[in-house]
Parts: sequence; structure tokens; C-alpha cells
Amino acid sequence: MGGTEAPQRSRPWLMRTYSGHSTARASNELYRSMLAAGQTGLSVAFDLPTQTGYDPDHPMARGEVGKVGVPVSHLGHMAQLMDGIPPDAMNTSMTINATAPWLLGLYIANAHNAGAAPDVLRGTTQNDIVKEYLSRGTYIFGPEASRRLTTDVVAYCSAHLPQWNPINVCSYHLQEAGATPTQEIAYALAGAIDVLDAVRDSGKVPPERFGQTVGSISFFVNGGIRFVEEVCKVRAFTAMWDRICADRYGVADPKQRRFRYGVQVNSLGLTEAQPENNVARITLEALGVTLSQRARTRSLQLPAWNEALGLPRLWDQQWSLRIQQVLAHETDLLDHGDIFDGSHVIEGRTAELAEAAQAELDEVLSMGGAFAAISELKRRLVASHTERVRRIESGELTVVGVNTFTETAPSPLQGDESILRVDPRVEDDMVAELEQWRSTRDSNRVAAALDDLRVAASGDVNIMGPSIEAAHAGVTTGEWAQALREIFGEFRAPTGLGGAIGSVGNARGPSPAAGHDADPADGTGRATRRASRGSSLAALAARCAAMPGGPPRVLVAKPGLDGHSNGAEQVAVAARDAGMEVIYEGIRLTPSHIAATARDEDVDVVGLSILSGSHLELVPEVLDCLSAAGVAAPVVVGGIIPAADHERLIEAGVAAVYTPKDFELAAIMADIAALALAGRARAEGG
Amino acid sequence: MGGTEAPQRSRPWLMRTYSGHSTARASNELYRSMLAAGQTGLSVAFDLPTQTGYDPDHPMARGEVGKVGVPVSHLGHMAQLMDGIPPDAMNTSMTINATAPWLLGLYIANAHNAGAAPDVLRGTTQNDIVKEYLSRGTYIFGPEASRRLTTDVVAYCSAHLPQWNPINVCSYHLQEAGATPTQEIAYALAGAIDVLDAVRDSGKVPPERFGQTVGSISFFVNGGIRFVEEVCKVRAFTAMWDRICADRYGVADPKQRRFRYGVQVNSLGLTEAQPENNVARITLEALGVTLSQRARTRSLQLPAWNEALGLPRLWDQQWSLRIQQVLAHETDLLDHGDIFDGSHVIEGRTAELAEAAQAELDEVLSMGGAFAAISELKRRLVASHTERVRRIESGELTVVGVNTFTETAPSPLQGDESILRVDPRVEDDMVAELEQWRSTRDSNRVAAALDDLRVAASGDVNIMGPSIEAAHAGVTTGEWAQALREIFGEFRAPTGLGGAIGSVGNARGPSPAAGHDADPADGTGRATRRASRGSSLAALAARCAAMPGGPPRVLVAKPGLDGHSNGAEQVAVAARDAGMEVIYEGIRLTPSHIAATARDEDVDVVGLSILSGSHLELVPEVLDCLSAAGVAAPVVVGGIIPAADHERLIEAGVAAVYTPKDFELAAIMADIAALALAGRARAEGG
Repeated sequence: MGGTEAPQRSRPWLMRTYSGHSTARASNELYRSMLAAGQTGLSVAFDLPTQTGYDPDHPMARGEVGKVGVPVSHLGHMAQLMDGIPPDAMNTSMTINATAPWLLGLYIANAHNAGAAPDVLRGTTQNDIVKEYLSRGTYIFGPEASRRLTTDVVAYCSAHLPQWNPINVCSYHLQEAGATPTQEIAYALAGAIDVLDAVRDSGKVPPERFGQTVGSISFFVNGGIRFVEEVCKVRAFTAMWDRICADRYGVADPKQRRFRYGVQVNSLGLTEAQPENNVARITLEALGVTLSQRARTRSLQLPAWNEALGLPRLWDQQWSLRIQQVLAHETDLLDHGDIFDGSHVIEGRTAELAEAAQAELDEVLSMGGAFAAISELKRRLVASHTERVRRIESGELTVVGVNTFTETAPSPLQGDESILRVDPRVEDDMVAELEQWRSTRDSNRVAAALDDLRVAASGDVNIMGPSIEAAHAGVTTGEWAQALREIFGEFRAPTGLGGAIGSVGNARGPSPAAGHDADPADGTGRATRRASRGSSLAALAARCAAMPGGPPRVLVAKPGLDGHSNGAEQVAVAARDAGMEVIYEGIRLTPSHIAATARDEDVDVVGLSILSGSHLELVPEVLDCLSAAGVAAPVVVGGIIPAADHERLIEAGVAAVYTPKDFELAAIMADIAALALAGRARAEGG
Repeated sequence: MGGTEAPQRSRPWLMRTYSGHSTARASNELYRSMLAAGQTGLSVAFDLPTQTGYDPDHPMARGEVGKVGVPVSHLGHMAQLMDGIPPDAMNTSMTINATAPWLLGLYIANAHNAGAAPDVLRGTTQNDIVKEYLSRGTYIFGPEASRRLTTDVVAYCSAHLPQWNPINVCSYHLQEAGATPTQEIAYALAGAIDVLDAVRDSGKVPPERFGQTVGSISFFVNGGIRFVEEVCKVRAFTAMWDRICADRYGVADPKQRRFRYGVQVNSLGLTEAQPENNVARITLEALGVTLSQRARTRSLQLPAWNEALGLPRLWDQQWSLRIQQVLAHETDLLDHGDIFDGSHVIEGRTAELAEAAQAELDEVLSMGGAFAAISELKRRLVASHTERVRRIESGELTVVGVNTFTETAPSPLQGDESILRVDPRVEDDMVAELEQWRSTRDSNRVAAALDDLRVAASGDVNIMGPSIEAAHAGVTTGEWAQALREIFGEFRAPTGLGGAIGSVGNARGPSPAAGHDADPADGTGRATRRASRGSSLAALAARCAAMPGGPPRVLVAKPGLDGHSNGAEQVAVAARDAGMEVIYEGIRLTPSHIAATARDEDVDVVGLSILSGSHLELVPEVLDCLSAAGVAAPVVVGGIIPAADHERLIEAGVAAVYTPKDFELAAIMADIAALALAGRARAEGG
């Protein structure tokens, strides 16, 4: 034959599954099962209290313990979590950000106890706070303190954990928040530059190790369904990062300039309707980040088909692992060189994307970088997401089974057996276990460790040393975070709703939307399918403006620790465009705070958004608080709510439940307006 | 931006599902459901009696009526099948070969009754007999008569159905039979050349219409799991066909030289074990034939995830349709020009494939073409398939869930509810209905039509005219085929086992395989996993040679109409390599014939292979015949046998049941040897 000699078969990427639930012991069992099924790395999902620095017995942790991940409150939990998994033989990715120094400290302390020195440890701490402000919501501290903690981890790893990726700069969550490919590239690179500039300028890493430190920065990218464009995106990322490392940081070694990235594919596009279709989506989403050899992901984790329904079971996760294995081991993907090198279409589109992303990156840098520009970036993301939601509602963007091809034969994969349920006793058990833990440790050593932490936080001692000592001393996650909260204070991130689409929250007022289109709503509270969202909302706005007593006043609130605010933000935007007065104060509110706001703002309807699975605990608590505060406004709930729980919420007093199936925000707004009207009529009658 | 302007979005391919079962009415209901679910074309699966020219009341049809497709015995059935589906608005693909002129006649007659003229009909008759000889087994007549009927259809369509694809030259079944990409290209192109040469040489089509006739030839290609190579395969196909049309047939219009092809993706690689993994396989298999815009399929049908388990339900087929819809409507695949134009890797590998395929094609042409070389092509395919099976057994070829990653969590998709069962009363109903049909038609018109058919078949009148008149007259499928059988006789295709791997059947003898490797079999009848197949079989051969009374004598037989002989052939090859004496007479044997052979050949074990789902009818009948013939040899059964049927077959007297899960032929051979030994011991003891 001759000509193009086939290159050696490439090694497959690391195969992971983002997982963890209930307890460290239960999660360890899951990890061992998945490793036995052929998984080649770990990806630890922590629960929200662990991510936001609360112990299970903190009031803010109520309902959230063990729900979206594993609770790790102390060294004992880390030991249980990694039981039987040798730290020197595992590559562990930890999705942890605000408390990243602490969880890495626990990991190092546990590895030490297992006889493994830091320099053999391989893995990743996500440790990217910018995207927490922009999308994911598990931040604790403000930008300055957060950047300092981030760079402490980078510097510590540079000195002691040379095989560790100290930060995984995330573009993933930007796409989930609605980012275009251009925004995804630009904002992620801006975040990486901000951290590396800070490391360089801080002098925490000596110049001779700076190239290696640049090389230790990894990325966490999203793989979307538009996989051809995604190929171009990762190739553009690769080219741009190489140039930034060379030009901005003077890194001479091409290896240290490599755009090394892991991937979780897109969850945003997975549907609750006809969820079996998600298997094809997940498979196709894996393509964008694996097809191009030169820009192929280093590690891949795939969500389960039932992600939009609830927590996956072992079989669901195994299925997603098998998708990776079929792609890597049965296809010939790894048998070839880069199949796009020379491609006119791919190279052309890549160049276009890189050019547009560079312009957007330059703009962010001109605003002072990612940390400084958070408010503007958030505004742009909310606007992009609003546009995406609008296109789905109008049918411009096809979502099979949702806005087209909605007919379906009865599915054997339906039913409430198709997700994992976290035992509600887990929270009580954890609280009891924590009491036991505290009672058996050396309280003097704990106090000293916490003192050292405070001293380090107040000054410029690297936080990692005292964190590791605190781990050994038996300090808990809540105590570690509380010590730092005392020094750094807490932060509330911008909601992105301020300037972009009219004032929300404190500066609310009537919407400027003009209702000149025909009204396609059918009067039953459900807008006609495929009606133009703009015209629906404008017509609704006209009706709201004409309501006796003024337009409906709506409180959109996120109780609990769940920071996934994209849905709540879009509801707030739509309510705003429907001419309602909207109060939205961001994430992480207590039930009593929500009730007080509802009372003080005299709202007509309360909308709660919960995606963490804690709705059965949190919603009744909000209802109790509202009742105690004398608020009669009806409550609607939106989020990932399994069908079997709808009836329970309705019985508890909720007026309506919305899930991802309800993609037509105009229809939801019509419902809310009707609820407001009915509520006022009741109030006048009574 | 500028530079590469994005081209207009391409139109999606036709989306079909290969389906049909039970009755014409039930299939019509299924078609309407799938059209409502967004399917854009029909793909009719006919049952085996219809494909091989038997009415439901023929003894050969027993157990097969409505099993793998819809029975269409006369014009009334065609009218039921297409009820409510306007013939001028549908694109219908019919998988029909030996009886293609007849079914096309029924389709035209039915369209006529519905007011649609032939020239508006769009669709495809498969009408490719070469691959029936080589792989699929629904041939009736010999090569000469078959080629004549094929060209009659081509010529008739050229004159009357200009929008119809009269032949769909199939490479699909060659891949199913084990063909390498090179073989798939070469043998399919050889088949197309053979037919077009015959059309040209026959003078059936006037020269001024020959270019259009060349342009009406379409292809039916397989999409395998090695999708990068598959991209190169379809690009090589495209380039080679263009050249053949230009050089060999002097076609000037590039449109008429286009390689137009439909696709069903690979079934061979779908697994019975962990069948949910097939969804990823099917999705990835769709890529090879859709990624490259220049060589993209015109129509695609995807198998269901449970194809290796049995007949799919509506939901299963909907799921596969949704895979197509997600690929076409949610991804950006159709938004770009050809993403491989300019690609060094793809263009290089395409050129290699085209060069190798041209060499193999030239060789076939030098042997006189595809029809003349059938025996040699079959031998090569069996050898390729043997190599594939060997590589799976050895683990060189990874099949996830089968030879690696076999651990699995309990699946909610298991259970015997997960396939469709054809009501066993269908056959009796159809027989009664046929009697009714015959009693109400004009018998003189029927007799005259059959006379005209015989005259046409004997001379050179195009068979289509009399076939359409016979359709209108109420002739049945069995009568049409019987009339032609009387003129053309019947044919038995080569088994491919003759020269390639030692003599089988009449010329059987001990295997030359030498057992010089260590014996990895564990003596329990199950060979150690991952043992080398060669060494296992060689060791078994040594033991078989030493057996008192000589090596085991095994009859491998395919009862009923099922022509899928790949499995039986591989069992015969393996038995042969295990030193057994093998009798294999090919496909389509009656139970009484099998019993007589077992008695005459004094076999130790009878192995039956059935993939059509008719095992519950045919196996007991074979057992009865064996018993009546005084044969005590144990019977084993292999095929697509749902788990719930295993027990029923065992109760009926079968010694063992094998399904696609049992991929280790060495282990099956050890079982058979043990059965033979035990049988002889019983015989001596008795």
C-alpha cells in the first residue's frame, strides 16, 4: 500500500464517572464497582454542604446531606471513601472549589496515612471559583480571598504534588449556563490567565518552576451536541492556549503549553421527556472532544441517561461507562492520526472561532480580567441563555421529544424505579456520627489547628500546610470553612439580571415590553405550542399591566444550598418580560429568609427552584415558614422533581410543579398570572 | 470572520425503519405509528415465505409466517399494508429479491387501484440476488434465471418507473457475512457491473436511456462500528463508482454517476449481552455513512437495541428513529460542507482502500464477474468471517460486554417482556384467509395469468407485464413462484466450506489440524476464557481423533426458510477444526430431510441453527422426525432464542441451547464432543 502509514494506536483517555452519594462508605462501594467495570479513574462528586463548607448538622445543610454527592466532613470520611483504592495507583478528580484546599488537605493526609507521599499523587482539584460565581454557585468567599486560596493550592502543588492538576479551569459550566462556543473559550482562558498572572505576580512559585506550573494547569470542557463545532472549539482552545503560554508566560517547552483538558459532556441538552434519547445525545456529545487526535480530551466522564430525572443507579452509570468503552475499544477512532488535519471546513471554522474568541478574550482582559468582570460576564451568559431558551420555545432550535417528535410509545424505562433514592435517614446518621467524631478527637490539637488556619488566612502563609495539619487533627469541613469565613467574610455573586433585561430585585419596575403582537394564548393558562414566546409574553404583559392592583408580584427563590441558578434566572427573566414585578435575590436562601421576603414584599406568587433533590425536605419547610409569617401567596416549585414526588408536593400545599419537560416559559408565566389573579380574588372575597 | 462561508444546511437523509411482522394489517398500523413519530420513508420487511415464494399453507412455510416480516400473499395484503399511505407521497423500500418482480408487481397494481400511475412511484426493490447466494439465502433460482429476472425489473423501471431504484446492490450483507471493507466494496461493485453489463448486452434498454438506467442503480451499504474506516469506505465507493460509470458505461452526466446509497447499520456487532450497549453502537455506526457530506447516505435505517434478543416493539423502533432525529436535527452535522475534504488521514486511507478494492474487483472480473465467481467469493467470505470470530475469541477484537467488561449490574431492560412476540395463531389465520381469497377470485383469469407468466419466463417477454396482470388477477405469491420454479428450476448455493477449510458434507474426512499447543480446556466442557481458539480446537482435535469409534460425527442443519447461514457455517468450520466429521448441506431443509440425513449418516450429535424466531415450531418437529427415524443422537440448538424459550426447548428434549452470548466456539465444540461421548456410552450401555 504505502503512502500514509497508519500511526500507532493512541492510548484511550481516562474513563471516569462523576459520582458519589449518601455516605463515604456507600460511595466507596460504588467506586469499587465502577472500577471493576473498567473505569480507569475516579471523579468524586461532593454533596453541597461539603462544597460550601458546612457540616451535616448546620442549619444550611438541612435536606442536602448526601444528595448530589458524598458528604466528607473529616479525615475519617476520606479514609472510608478511598478504602481499598491505593492512592498511588489512582487518578482522582475532585469537583471541589471553595473548599478545595481543605479537601485536597484531607486527600493528602489520608494518602500519608496510607503510606503514599504527596509527590506520587495524581489527580485534579477543580479549584475554579470564577465559574462558581458565573454558573455553579458553590462559592463562599469574595474574589480576592478566593483567588488567594486558589493560588495557594497551585503554589503548594508546584512544590509538593508535581503530578497533580491544582486547578481545572472550567468552560464546562459556562456552556451549561448558555455560553456560545466563543464565550466558552474566551471566559475560560480569561480565568486561567487571571490565576496564572496572580501566581506569577505573587511570587509564590519561583521563576524556575513557573513553566512547570503553567503546564500543571488543566481545563474542564463541555462536549455539546453540535459536535462538529465542538471539534473546532477544542482545536481553537488548543491553538490559543499554546500561544498564550508562549507569548504571555514565555513557556519554551511545547509540552508545558499543551491544552490538557477533561470533559463532562453536556447535561443542559439532556431531556426528561423520552429520556432514552439521551443515550444517543451522550454518545454524540463524546465525539466533539475525542474525534480530533491533536485536541483530544485526556479524561472523559459521561452523564447517565436519566440525569434529568434524578440520581443515577449503578446500572445507569455502567451504561455510560460502556459508551466510552465502545467508542474507545470497538471503533477505530484510536487507530488513526488526526482525521481533521488538512480539512478545509474544520480548519476554516476553527480559525473563525479562535478569532472571535480572541476578540472576546481581549475585551475581558481590558475589563481587568475574569475576576473583575464577573458581573458583566454573568450578564452576557444570562442573555445567551435567554436566547437559547427562546429558540427552543420558538422551535428554531430542535430538541427531539421536547419541542418536536413528542409522540411516544409506552416506555419500559419509565417509572419511579428508574432513579436512585438517597435514604432520608442518611442525614440523621451523619449528624450522629459527626457528634461521635468530635467527642473522640484531641480538642486542644483541633483548637490549635484552627488557630493556625486563622493566622494563615489573615497573613500570607500558604493555607495548605495548616489545612493538612487540621485534617490530621480531626477538624471538620464546617470548622475549616468557619475559620476562614471569620477572616474572609462571605460573598453574594451577581445574578446577571441587573442591567441586561430590566431591573430585578431591589430596583424592580414595570417592563418596557410593548404588546403589539396578536395574543396566541388560549385563555386556559397554557400558551399555544409554537406560539412566539415574545408575542406571548408581550400579550401577557399587556394583561398584567391592566390588572387591578397592578401587575403580579412574584418572588423567585432558591432555598437550600443548590447553586444551579440558570433555571431560576430564566424564570425571572420571563416573568419580567411578562410584565410582572420580580424579586430575585440569588441562591442559597433559608426558608425563613424566603418567608420574610415574601411577607415584606407582599408577593402574589412564590416560585421555588430546587435541582439538588432536596425538595421533599425544603419545600414543606418553606411552606411552614410562609404560613407562620402569614403569607397566603400560592407556591409553585420547579426543578428536577421525580414524577412520584409531584403528588406529595401538591398534597403539602404546592400549587404547581414544573420540571424540565415544561420548556415553554410563556405557558408557565400564564399559569403564574392566573394564580396571582385567583389569589387576589380570594383575598378580596375573604 | 469571513473566509469559509458556511454552506446552506443540507437536507436530512430519508429516515426509515426496517419493519413488518405478523400480518399486513398489523404492519400497516406499525407503519402509521412510525410515520406519525417522524419517520420519512418506509422499509418493508417481508416474511421468509414471501421472500422465498411460498404461500402460508405450504409445508416449507411452517413456523415462519409473519415471523421476520410481513406476509404478503396477494394484492389484498398489499392493499392492507399500504392502507392510508398514499403511494404517490411515500418512498417505499422493499427488501425483496428472488420474488422482487412479483412484489413490485403487487405494489404497482395496488398503486394503480389507488389512482397512482407507475411514473410517480418512488422507492426501491432490493432485487440483488448475488448477496442472497453469498450471505442472506432467500434466492430461489439459479444465477442465469435470476440475472434475467433482475434485468427485467431494471428494464421495466427504466421504461415505466423512472423514479424507482430497480436494484439496490447490497454490500450490507457482505459485511454481515464477515467481509472486510475491501471485499465489501469490490464484491458489491462487481455485482452492479454484472447486472449493468447484462442490461446493456441484452438490449432491453435502448442506448439513449442507458445513462438514466445507470443512474437508477442504487446501493445498500453497511455502516460498521469502525466508523473512521467506514467514512473512507463510502468515499472510496463514491469515487470508484463515478469512474466505473464514466469509463465502463460512458455516462456523461455526473448526476447519473453518483454513488447513491441507503444504509442499515451493522447488526453483526450488536450483542445479546448487556444489550443496552447497542444504543451507543448503533449511534456510532450511523456516523461512518453520514459524516462525509460528499458521500453521505440517502436513506438510513437503524436496527433496534434488542435486535439480538428478538423482534423489536414499537418503542424500540421509535428509539432508533429518535437516534436519527437527534443526529440530523440536534447536532450541527448538516450545517457544514464536507468535513473531510482536504483531510490527510481520510484521503490517504480512502486512496488505499480504493486501490485494494480495485485490485480485488479486477480479480473478480477476471473470474467472469460476480455471478460466475460466487463459489470463490463465498469461500473468501467464510474465511474472513472465521478470522473475525477467531479474533473475538482470542480477545484481539474487543466486544464490550462479551469478551471484556462482562461484569454487569442488574438491568431494568432485561426480561422476556423486552421483545415483541408474534401471535402463534397468525399462521392459522393466514392459511384460512388464503383459502377464502382463492375461493372468491376468477379462476380462469388466474389460470390465464399463470400461463402468461410461464410463457414469459420461457421466452424473453419481460416478466413484469405478466406479473402485474397476475397481481390484478388475484394470483398468490406461492403460485407466482411455482410457475417460475416450473420453468427455471431451483438452486442450491455453495456453502463456502468446500475448499477453504477442508472438506465438509459429502467429502468429509479427518482434519489436518495438528495439536501441538498446550490444552487450555478445563475438562468440564467449557474452555478457559481467553484461551487461544486454535490451541483449544487443536487439543480437542487430538482427543477426538483418539475417541473409540472414531471422531464425533456432527450434523449441522438449518431447518425452515431462514437463510442466515453465517453462524451455522462458523459452527461447521469450528467442528471441522476440532477434528469432528461434519455434515452440512446448506440452508432450507425440511425436518424430515434432516432426520433422514441424521439416520443415514449415523451422526452422534445434531446441531440446528434458527435465527428467524421459528424455533418453537421447527425444533419439536425435527425432534419428532428424528424419533420417528429412530435417531437417538442428542440435539443442540443455536440462534436468536429468547431466554424464556430455553426451558421450553430443553423440556422438548433439546440437550443445549446456544445464543449470540456464546461466542466461544471452542467451548461449544467441547460440549458437543462431551455429548457425543456420553451418547456413545449410553448406546453401549443400552
